Amino acid sequence: MQDVVVLGVGQSEFGKFPERGIAELGGAAARTAIADAGIDPGDLQAAFSSRVYEAMITSQTILKDLGVTGIEMVNVENACAGGSTAVRSLYKDIAAGYVDVGIAIGVESMTTSPVAGKLIPPDKDDLDGQMGLSMPVLFALQAKRLMETHGAKEEDFAQVSVKAHEFGALNPKAQYRKRFTVEEVLGSRMVADPITLLQCCPNTDGAAAVVLASADFARKYTEKPVRITGSSLISGDYDFKRADLTTMPLGVKAATSAYEQAGIGPEDVDVVELHDAFATEELVHYEDLGLCPRGESVGLLRSGATSLGGRVPVNPSGGLLSLGHPLAASGVRIICELTDQLRGRAGDRQVPGAKVGLAQMLGGAATGLDAGAASVHILTV
Amino acid sequence: MQDVVVLGVGQSEFGKFPERGIAELGGAAARTAIADAGIDPGDLQAAFSSRVYEAMITSQTILKDLGVTGIEMVNVENACAGGSTAVRSLYKDIAAGYVDVGIAIGVESMTTSPVAGKLIPPDKDDLDGQMGLSMPVLFALQAKRLMETHGAKEEDFAQVSVKAHEFGALNPKAQYRKRFTVEEVLGSRMVADPITLLQCCPNTDGAAAVVLASADFARKYTEKPVRITGSSLISGDYDFKRADLTTMPLGVKAATSAYEQAGIGPEDVDVVELHDAFATEELVHYEDLGLCPRGESVGLLRSGATSLGGRVPVNPSGGLLSLGHPLAASGVRIICELTDQLRGRAGDRQVPGAKVGLAQMLGGAATGLDAGAASVHILTV
Repeated sequence: MQDVVVLGVGQSEFGKFPERGIAELGGAAARTAIADAGIDPGDLQAAFSSRVYEAMITSQTILKDLGVTGIEMVNVENACAGGSTAVRSLYKDIAAGYVDVGIAIGVESMTTSPVAGKLIPPDKDDLDGQMGLSMPVLFALQAKRLMETHGAKEEDFAQVSVKAHEFGALNPKAQYRKRFTVEEVLGSRMVADPITLLQCCPNTDGAAAVVLASADFARKYTEKPVRITGSSLISGDYDFKRADLTTMPLGVKAATSAYEQAGIGPEDVDVVELHDAFATEELVHYEDLGLCPRGESVGLLRSGATSLGGRVPVNPSGGLLSLGHPLAASGVRIICELTDQLRGRAGDRQVPGAKVGLAQMLGGAATGLDAGAASVHILTV
Repeated sequence: MQDVVVLGVGQSEFGKFPERGIAELGGAAARTAIADAGIDPGDLQAAFSSRVYEAMITSQTILKDLGVTGIEMVNVENACAGGSTAVRSLYKDIAAGYVDVGIAIGVESMTTSPVAGKLIPPDKDDLDGQMGLSMPVLFALQAKRLMETHGAKEEDFAQVSVKAHEFGALNPKAQYRKRFTVEEVLGSRMVADPITLLQCCPNTDGAAAVVLASADFARKYTEKPVRITGSSLISGDYDFKRADLTTMPLGVKAATSAYEQAGIGPEDVDVVELHDAFATEELVHYEDLGLCPRGESVGLLRSGATSLGGRVPVNPSGGLLSLGHPLAASGVRIICELTDQLRGRAGDRQVPGAKVGLAQMLGGAATGLDAGAASVHILTV
């Protein structure tokens, strides 16, 4: 097995760009990642792209304009974990020695999608959907449970969003670069009690790309590689009808597997990027990732440990809530953010001295579909 | 690297089944493949599924009903080569030793798709599409060129369809189990001169699945494994605006790479399954796969070498033309057919004594999109 490193990262602006197609968004991210890696497009030996909506020949569409041709290109999907799946697929091919360098891309054009973010009537067989169990409602049930079992207050959930937007305001790529108060978050439109609008991630167009390489290949390009020391992808039941709604077993399994491979524990992690499609779920992930003992996520949040300047900042990018969430792009984008953090080039949102980053993404659980995927990558310098 | 074998294959019926969703179609194929392999669903360590249209969490949706959970599941897309991409992705993971046994599934529900087989207006930037360069037209241009350079007659193209339907009539899974004469094929509705309706593959619902395993794992289950000795997937320009329309360089590269890995040449191949979305293209693939010298594809067809009882039967399944073409299923389905052939259990369409099979699939080149993918797998007993 070859060691695998992140050689370059790139990201388009995140926001609403209905006039920019996926080739343009993806191309911008890919060009930046290739330039950041210091390689030529012609050096690429493999490409894995992900797009959830209207995906068709995504890698080929994006890379054609860069003159990249004649290599293996695969297009993957795993809902919100699609980008993570692209990263992991490339990671596995490099680790196995099939190729030495390649690109993973995530891209989504949600504003032009006839499906994304639209109110789609549930299937006739989808009893959950018929009952109104949409994504925000599922997470609202989880939040209500956290209020029962964890003593979480509505203000705590709002604080997650406040924190995300504090970070996002410092990120030039973010869709929303605006700070909010707890009162403003709570005062925004109610979506599914207790989740208000500002606790939901927006629909976003955008792309992210990473160039991965074998450690041997990378030696020519960098003296301080960001190594991928843990990588997991697990699918299965993403079930909101369990007795204990305050943990997501799939997320626990993905984290455990990645920690084991990296030979580290949660206490070694300096910075985290995780799936905050709804502010409320961040508390669940704190515990599922082992950032605090079971039952203590509210305390961890209130202590400021996960805020800027805290012990283990979570979502310094602004997260899905503030940076935005172009579905398949997010799994790649979190690798971009952590790479920037570990290289000490994250600007105003830099986590000082960060050496170990954890990137987590979950996908699936759409209405009428319990099945999902969870992925964790651990990056180390 | 571990040797990889096909341990089990399964296929749903192919046809128009708007009442059967992808979980049912894919589940039927998966259950058959798992039973054929002689393993339990719980033995599976990885799953790769492909679906081109409306794909979302395809592996998870299909395998949930089989109780398969907690493993790595990836969903891939590469247009008509999507199923081949799923097979190859699993092949690579087993060869690398990541897992020892897994399933690859291809599935499509084209009759329920709002996109598949519908007349979609071309993008405003798609000048080719605006000019009417749809898929049948592109292949019609290729056919016209074959008539100029190769002396191909309309009757030759029709004969490809006649041959496909002769085979398909013997395949209980086929969408069209009906023989046609050359006159009937030529007399069917003109689609794009010289391509008539019966020279176009139909829209099809269906699924196929294969269980692949390491040779070591397989030893417990079979004494006569079907080995995958060559596997390639190459993407790039799928350009119909070249000087020489009678070859598709992507297909040549995919074949060359697979032959090289397998250490064999075209003369060693006993049976072929290839991409005959339009009858006319089969002649191009004969030469691109090296089944005959350049310029001699018409002679090869006329000699009967590629028919039932010939030297190297092509598309004994009935091919896309007669068996049907559920896009992402086809790349998996060709592995099913060849495995059955190499195991001597292909019934009335058995190629006697077949030892080496070649599975080829091309994808992409949709209107306004030159980029595509080509994949070749070589199976050996």
